[in-house]
Amino acid sequence: MQFASDNTGPAHPKVMEAMLRANEGYAMGYGADPLMNEVHERMCDLFETPQAAVHLVINGTTANSLLLATLAKPWDAIFCTQMSHIEEDEGNAPEFFSGGAKLHLIPAENARMTPDDLRSAIEAQGNRGVHGPQRGPVSITQATETGTIYSLEQIKALTDVARSCGLKTHLDGARFANAMVRLGCSAAEMTTHAGIDAISFGGTKNGLIGVEACVLLDPEKAFEFEMRRKRAGHLLSKHRYLSAQMLAYLTDDLWIDMAQAANAASDRLRLGMAQMSDVHIHDDPASNLFFASFPRAAHKRLHDAGAVYYTWGDVEDGPADALIRGRFVTNWSTSETEVDQFLDILAGG
Amino acid sequence: MQFASDNTGPAHPKVMEAMLRANEGYAMGYGADPLMNEVHERMCDLFETPQAAVHLVINGTTANSLLLATLAKPWDAIFCTQMSHIEEDEGNAPEFFSGGAKLHLIPAENARMTPDDLRSAIEAQGNRGVHGPQRGPVSITQATETGTIYSLEQIKALTDVARSCGLKTHLDGARFANAMVRLGCSAAEMTTHAGIDAISFGGTKNGLIGVEACVLLDPEKAFEFEMRRKRAGHLLSKHRYLSAQMLAYLTDDLWIDMAQAANAASDRLRLGMAQMSDVHIHDDPASNLFFASFPRAAHKRLHDAGAVYYTWGDVEDGPADALIRGRFVTNWSTSETEVDQFLDILAGG
Amino acid sequence: MQFASDNTGPAHPKVMEAMLRANEGYAMGYGADPLMNEVHERMCDLFETPQAAVHLVINGTTANSLLLATLAKPWDAIFCTQMSHIEEDEGNAPEFFSGGAKLHLIPAENARMTPDDLRSAIEAQGNRGVHGPQRGPVSITQATETGTIYSLEQIKALTDVARSCGLKTHLDGARFANAMVRLGCSAAEMTTHAGIDAISFGGTKNGLIGVEACVLLDPEKAFEFEMRRKRAGHLLSKHRYLSAQMLAYLTDDLWIDMAQAANAASDRLRLGMAQMSDVHIHDDPASNLFFASFPRAAHKRLHDAGAVYYTWGDVEDGPADALIRGRFVTNWSTSETEVDQFLDILAGG
Amino acid sequence: MQFASDNTGPAHPKVMEAMLRANEGYAMGYGADPLMNEVHERMCDLFETPQAAVHLVINGTTANSLLLATLAKPWDAIFCTQMSHIEEDEGNAPEFFSGGAKLHLIPAENARMTPDDLRSAIEAQGNRGVHGPQRGPVSITQATETGTIYSLEQIKALTDVARSCGLKTHLDGARFANAMVRLGCSAAEMTTHAGIDAISFGGTKNGLIGVEACVLLDPEKAFEFEMRRKRAGHLLSKHRYLSAQMLAYLTDDLWIDMAQAANAASDRLRLGMAQMSDVHIHDDPASNLFFASFPRAAHKRLHDAGAVYYTWGDVEDGPADALIRGRFVTNWSTSETEVDQFLDILAGG
Repeated sequence: MQFASDNTGPAHPKVMEAMLRANEGYAMGYGADPLMNEVHERMCDLFETPQAAVHLVINGTTANSLLLATLAKPWDAIFCTQMSHIEEDEGNAPEFFSGGAKLHLIPAENARMTPDDLRSAIEAQGNRGVHGPQRGPVSITQATETGTIYSLEQIKALTDVARSCGLKTHLDGARFANAMVRLGCSAAEMTTHAGIDAISFGGTKNGLIGVEACVLLDPEKAFEFEMRRKRAGHLLSKHRYLSAQMLAYLTDDLWIDMAQAANAASDRLRLGMAQMSDVHIHDDPASNLFFASFPRAAHKRLHDAGAVYYTWGDVEDGPADALIRGRFVTNWSTSETEVDQFLDILAGG
Repeated sequence: MQFASDNTGPAHPKVMEAMLRANEGYAMGYGADPLMNEVHERMCDLFETPQAAVHLVINGTTANSLLLATLAKPWDAIFCTQMSHIEEDEGNAPEFFSGGAKLHLIPAENARMTPDDLRSAIEAQGNRGVHGPQRGPVSITQATETGTIYSLEQIKALTDVARSCGLKTHLDGARFANAMVRLGCSAAEMTTHAGIDAISFGGTKNGLIGVEACVLLDPEKAFEFEMRRKRAGHLLSKHRYLSAQMLAYLTDDLWIDMAQAANAASDRLRLGMAQMSDVHIHDDPASNLFFASFPRAAHKRLHDAGAVYYTWGDVEDGPADALIRGRFVTNWSTSETEVDQFLDILAGG
Repeated sequence: MQFASDNTGPAHPKVMEAMLRANEGYAMGYGADPLMNEVHERMCDLFETPQAAVHLVINGTTANSLLLATLAKPWDAIFCTQMSHIEEDEGNAPEFFSGGAKLHLIPAENARMTPDDLRSAIEAQGNRGVHGPQRGPVSITQATETGTIYSLEQIKALTDVARSCGLKTHLDGARFANAMVRLGCSAAEMTTHAGIDAISFGGTKNGLIGVEACVLLDPEKAFEFEMRRKRAGHLLSKHRYLSAQMLAYLTDDLWIDMAQAANAASDRLRLGMAQMSDVHIHDDPASNLFFASFPRAAHKRLHDAGAVYYTWGDVEDGPADALIRGRFVTNWSTSETEVDQFLDILAGG
Repeated sequence: MQFASDNTGPAHPKVMEAMLRANEGYAMGYGADPLMNEVHERMCDLFETPQAAVHLVINGTTANSLLLATLAKPWDAIFCTQMSHIEEDEGNAPEFFSGGAKLHLIPAENARMTPDDLRSAIEAQGNRGVHGPQRGPVSITQATETGTIYSLEQIKALTDVARSCGLKTHLDGARFANAMVRLGCSAAEMTTHAGIDAISFGGTKNGLIGVEACVLLDPEKAFEFEMRRKRAGHLLSKHRYLSAQMLAYLTDDLWIDMAQAANAASDRLRLGMAQMSDVHIHDDPASNLFFASFPRAAHKRLHDAGAVYYTWGDVEDGPADALIRGRFVTNWSTSETEVDQFLDILAGG
């Protein structure tokens, strides 16, 4: 009953097999390994952009920060929601990598920004000459930090606002696959054709050991990106082990299968919980993550039974019916058994 | 005949097995995995400092930059040799991580700095009040970038100079094990007992997939280090895979065995080359890396036979006896066969 | 009728005389001039802290940024209101000087933050271990950006919250004197005795050519501050001209006289406007600055007559009674004549 | 007998008069004052480049750092001599402003770099792909830090090397006028026509209170420069006082007259000293600054008589004939009387 994060689960066996296969003999380092050529081709196909600049890094914070630093000037404001990962959970990494750009926070509805709010935020910046921050890139998260997802129309509406102001849009896709399979669209439909310029294409939360692809659909700034990666210590010498993971991910739809499994487990858990009268599901989650509130007494039972998830509220003390908010994240390896066991205990079993 | 770098070889099978074992079930992320506790204990034993702050990162550039940024103020000069990796091969990472500290270059004899040169360099800084850079930490590399090693007395003499000026000393140990086994000393003798304060303890070049330990013998700045690692994107969510590698490395003397194997292959290659009249070995290398010069004609034979190594000089054009300088690096997996084959071809075979 | 900013007016004649006096013969540079010794003594008396670290810089952005960078770590969040000068009008200078700290914006009532909102904001940070930004200093502005002022009790209540969380408080005193004379208190009462730790003590907006004092009541980080000033290019070689201005400012209550004159002019203007039925004064301003709304037709009359002030709203187009918001700032040299002329025109004259 | 620095002397009376004239009534801030328009025109005329981007800042460290940060990427190496002001006396400001660029030091002959050494230095960088720093701008100082000057041919030879490698050249002209009047050339001949791209045009050391012009001959990066200036706190609100100084400087050849006076005083002092058998003049100085060595006993006489200058060597202790090295800097206000008095005492009087 481990629902703390999709990064607490194991990597997929096929990924480990690919690591073993990659561990044969010599390979040139720093991205010059033959596997990386294949990854590049696959990614260009995926995004239907033959010349995209594609680089691998070890995690999402790095992918987001490197891409945003490449898109933003140090005196810019980057537009994102108040609950975005880049604001809340990256220890000021975007500020560090960009040399001091500012995150301009936009109110969120179910963790999504609206085109109107985005336009208002943009208009509130860049109107004081050199005195205020300048308008920089927009960053959205798909699936969002509360498990909701943007429709293709919603993404397009946001990138339209950004483009009408001359701004680029970055997509934090730490849970890219989870959103994509739910929308039933292609990767290119969710990005290239929706007006996105740069993508943090997540793999770590979806069954890899630790790899994300940084995709710049326009390769103009590819060299700048490479220098930013190098001087941030994120160019790996034994790069083949990153390539191998990503190649396995993209082979035989493994990434899609894993996302579907994680989403299905989340659905089973969420729908099971929603049927209980004293449980409230927040927002309208549609990926492999959701927030729910339920009585402290239920939490205590779950906790004592070894269930693991993040909580907000006073779990130690207070009335039995005080509401505790929990975050539940499933991953490709989550079993129906552990979901059902959890539901049983929550139901009072 | 792959001698380009010790990072072009594979990881050791025992390391891969440890990765597979680590890939079972759930594990808390971000360094809270149980394996990391073991790594910490082992490292404290190794350095005979029960409370050392030990953190894992993915490569040497990161280890060096994070440790130096923790030891240096942005307005400091960091003292290192003119051929140090931090100066030449890290794309200004130390400057980036430290917020703009300066590297003060010291002349090198066989890639080692001397205590006198270090003292002169320190005295040339920090004597102009607030106008010039202030005196910051000293960074030495063991084994050095040309394959030479410092004796324990030489290290002690340098840290004595540093301490007499109130400065800390960092050791770039990308090839820590290769130097240590040659000196026949313990890890603590080469560091803790020799006056070193912070160590980049390398694993990547010596048979791992990609892990280095950052060791602060005095844990006072441990939290600062953690925040620096986090905001640089170097805290891994699925941290267990770093811990597993490092634990395998330290188990049953695997790291020592691999360093000895690499050194032995280097000796066989170097001594074989040294017997040839038209080959000149540079410096006095004693680890798994050396530079040698030999006629262009010999290089051409080697190149045509598929030998790989970095070269300096005009390999395309010029007289057959023009000297080409090559860098030769062996690793734990280098076979006697490929060494002997190389020597045969070099000898004109 | 110049009400655009208090930095559009001239310096006081006594300041210019002090500049001329300072321009005699030789003086050691970089703050070693004898006048600076006097400034330091006066400032220590003023803040009733014998050992305060006092340094002069050329403007408020610099004073704020250097002090905040000295108080904050790069991975911290700095707490300030959403309309603070450091957020809106300094071109990301606080982020630049601090190496990437984040500004955490707090809602404001009449441009003041409340202790409850401050406490909520602090509690919302620093609770995600190394993943989120850490809690850094609080920065408040006195008088605020809309002309309101904090009472001594209000300041104390905020610094109590900060101290209870182990945080320092910075006071942006670009209009320090305007607030102080209105409160009828001493400089120390508004800072040292109210729990403030660092002060940007403004002079530029109050009759100087361009000088602010940076005051660290605890001198522990004085040297760090000096190095930050130096490497930011803010240590002046011919420093005597800064000292001379600040010394003249503090002599014979010149700074107090100028602030009273500016406030009196603002009162005359504001009270005059408040009597008109179609004018609305915003917030509860009490310094030399306020915002007011009035019909577009009135704005047009004023503009045609040469009145200068910043506006928000469509001044070019729209109905005559559409409301235009204007910002009005007086300075020590504002004459009753220009105020009365303005009021006449506004009244329809 | 004050020869410590040209920044210890007073500003010229005409400059103070200009300050008083500027102190009348209102003027828009932040560079929008009418005087700045005149300055811009004059500077464009001076450099024979109608569209140069010209911005005023308060000192040379700032001018150098802002211009170099505009020309260099954070991952670049900036080429300069080992004794350049940007390396030795700016407290890592160039590294700070540029976001971590590295200064690559070039050996100097009489403080000048040679085209051959420059070419070697450039070729030693940028040849390791993304691993090493990339090639950035060249920075030369005219007049140099030891008082020597580059001929027009020497400047041209250096910029030819830079341009052949695709690099820009910056001229640190803290003592621009002193060099120019000695060469008997125009400002444009020493810059625009000699291949220079960016100029720190000094005024502070040559009779101003504190102003330098930052000149980008190609205005392409003008806005970037403005944002860099703003976020570094170097955009002055009451900008008219900078404009007034620079305008006075350029009016009626005041700047040329002051430089000639300073050079003449330096010549009188240097030639007088050179006639003494126990005095040695270093390098081949030709501006208003030089280094000389002379016996400790002579230094003691001078010091006791109140002469002020920087020294190297043990002035406190040692034999009477031990050589002390002193730096002597004259300024526009240096009198023949003080020079002659100094020479008398040095001669044993």
